[in-house]
Amino acid sequence: RSPDHHLLDEATRVSELARELQDSASALISRTWNEEQGLRQRALALESDLRRLQSSLASAFKSPSFDHRCAEKVEEEMFRAKFLLSDGDVASLLPSKDHGRFLKMFLGPVNVRATRKEVRLKVKEEYNSYRDRTAFLFLLFPSMLLFLRSWIWKGCFPALPVQLYQAWLLFLYTSLALRENILRVNGSDIRPWWVYHHYCAMLMALISITWEIKGQPDCASKQKGVQLFLVWAIMQGIAMLLQNRYQRQRLYTRIALGKAKRMDVVWGETAGVEGQLWLLCPILFILQGFEAYVGMLLLRTAFVGVVSEWQVVACGALLVLMAVGNFANTVQTLMVKSRF
Amino acid sequence: RSPDHHLLDEATRVSELARELQDSASALISRTWNEEQGLRQRALALESDLRRLQSSLASAFKSPSFDHRCAEKVEEEMFRAKFLLSDGDVASLLPSKDHGRFLKMFLGPVNVRATRKEVRLKVKEEYNSYRDRTAFLFLLFPSMLLFLRSWIWKGCFPALPVQLYQAWLLFLYTSLALRENILRVNGSDIRPWWVYHHYCAMLMALISITWEIKGQPDCASKQKGVQLFLVWAIMQGIAMLLQNRYQRQRLYTRIALGKAKRMDVVWGETAGVEGQLWLLCPILFILQGFEAYVGMLLLRTAFVGVVSEWQVVACGALLVLMAVGNFANTVQTLMVKSRF
Ligand SMILES: CC(C)(COP(=O)(O)OP(=O)(O)OC[C@H]1O[C@@H](n2cnc3c(N)ncnc32)[C@H](O)[C@@H]1OP(=O)(O)O)[C@@H](O)C(=O)NCCC(=O)NCCS
Ligand SMILES: CC(C)(COP(=O)(O)OP(=O)(O)OC[C@H]1O[C@@H](n2cnc3c(N)ncnc32)[C@H](O)[C@@H]1OP(=O)(O)O)[C@@H](O)C(=O)NCCC(=O)NCCS
Repeated sequence: RSPDHHLLDEATRVSELARELQDSASALISRTWNEEQGLRQRALALESDLRRLQSSLASAFKSPSFDHRCAEKVEEEMFRAKFLLSDGDVASLLPSKDHGRFLKMFLGPVNVRATRKEVRLKVKEEYNSYRDRTAFLFLLFPSMLLFLRSWIWKGCFPALPVQLYQAWLLFLYTSLALRENILRVNGSDIRPWWVYHHYCAMLMALISITWEIKGQPDCASKQKGVQLFLVWAIMQGIAMLLQNRYQRQRLYTRIALGKAKRMDVVWGETAGVEGQLWLLCPILFILQGFEAYVGMLLLRTAFVGVVSEWQVVACGALLVLMAVGNFANTVQTLMVKSRF
Repeated sequence: RSPDHHLLDEATRVSELARELQDSASALISRTWNEEQGLRQRALALESDLRRLQSSLASAFKSPSFDHRCAEKVEEEMFRAKFLLSDGDVASLLPSKDHGRFLKMFLGPVNVRATRKEVRLKVKEEYNSYRDRTAFLFLLFPSMLLFLRSWIWKGCFPALPVQLYQAWLLFLYTSLALRENILRVNGSDIRPWWVYHHYCAMLMALISITWEIKGQPDCASKQKGVQLFLVWAIMQGIAMLLQNRYQRQRLYTRIALGKAKRMDVVWGETAGVEGQLWLLCPILFILQGFEAYVGMLLLRTAFVGVVSEWQVVACGALLVLMAVGNFANTVQTLMVKSRF
């Protein structure tokens, strides 16, 4: 046969292979779907069993002859079952109820839940390394602005660089908020506040963009607000760096122990990073205090009257709110941890 | 046995069931993963076969004795194989190379590709209905601002409502750009330009937020830029409504025909919506012309000197760029379609 026909044979073979592959893939997808449906059904049945049991238990508690040691055992078994349903491999097959309004608003009804645990851990690691990368920029940008202000711009910020920086902040916080929501969907136990905190920060970045950067004359006092904002940003960068170091190490410990889930928090904690937490927290508290102070200063500059834009007031109020929330949630985290 | 012990038995049973369910789920996940790996391997081998064939074909073309009818057949078979690999069910199992920088920047390395075709179609439908909902707001907001300006605000926009509107625009375009990128990952054939177009629009919204809304005296001429921007937005709303109507109907036709993929475009087209396209396009061209005109006016207001902020120039230039790009891509789409 001629070489041309050889080519044609080869092409026919490849196209045939492709068709077979397509058939196998489509069979696999529909078979997997059916098996998943079966598991889903079983999980739903189990969930309703659990609900029934819960109410039986509640009414049993009311009877005077009720054996409390027995009740404890019942609760333990139920906890175990619930834990498997919410954090085990089944969970990834269940319709995830909690994609959250924020993700829906930005992405629509797309599924961002990874089925395999390895992928979920990879997403978490990438989140951590993203935060590392941004923490440096977080220190660099505002420091540079403040530096250039005194060395080149003669005490007066030009509007464009500051606004570019603020736009970057807006992007950054949006992306952090999206990523954290995705982590939650993938089973992270991140406290809701840390996500709300980033919504507040997004709002603040947006407001600060509309904030008019006034020029000469007397810009030093008119730009007090911007300057304070930048100082806060530098602090935020420091907090992020410290927090990242601690959380990355914690994740590695947990992965190394092969236990990256809530029930094992105590393991991760005792295994070397607990000490770091007690070092980190005082620094965090100081930074949070400073955050509140900057917020107050912003409020004061607005009320004393040098700068009287509503943006300054709003940013000040948001900063105070974030400081209080951060403080309360750090304390709560510590309390939960020390209870173990 | 006492009722307490009955409860305990029940709880033990449920917890046992949960454990079994967990085991089945974890087995299913790892088995599916292994089978997917197998298919992936086969797909990769096929891809390299295709590459090899491609180069053999290229060198065969150089020989004078080459049979061109045969080459055509070879190319046809190869096209078929490539199509299955890129658009068939295998595609959803292959590592998706094209998540794109934009999605990675905002979401990190998370997989947004749906495995099942039904889900992919649902995402598309939701995107269409999202656009419908926003198209109305798109008409409503700027019309209201323009209306209030002449009836209540006496010819002078206050800054806050306009900035709120611009912030909404920024959110909207970001979310559209994210959703379109997700659609692309899920196999939509949307032209890259329509996505870039939304990046430009995001940039424009961001720039317009920093754009200072000047007040009295003589705000009518100082606010010329804002006013033109709003007029453009209304036009954009009209274009969106028309386009949505056509594209929704098109999607339905394609779903009804059970063929929602590229190769079958011609089917969707001839089946009733082609007429609509020839009605839609002249309107789109007029709107695009108007878009360029508004861009020019913005550039002129900046250069003639009433408003001399860089934001006005940048928005004008972006508008002209978008108009040209939209026009070129609409024409190209029409050309591709009429070739069938
Ligand atoms: C207090 C703190 C160190 C505790 O961290 P932790 O030990 O990881 O806390 P938890 O055990 O409650 O963590 C539960 C989950 O939430 C995550 N998490 C906790 N705090 C987080 C934060 N601030 N941002 C993002 N994720 C956070 C953890 O990574 C963990 O995720 P996982 O379930 O996927 O593994 C941490 O919350 C923190 O640094 N907070 C202070 C932040 C702050 O105040 N910044 C501004 C200062 S100006
Ligand atoms: C010209 C036009 C009507 C063609 O639409 P179409 O027939 O769907 O075009 P195609 O066949 O090339 O579509 C291919 C894919 O891209 C999508 N698509 C096309 N244009 C799109 C757009 N502007 N935005 C989002 N998606 C678009 C289609 O939905 C289709 O998706 P699918 O593969 O998932 O089914 C459309 O692109 C359009 O309306 N463009 C003009 C927009 C404009 O100029 N607006 C501003 C005016 S001021």
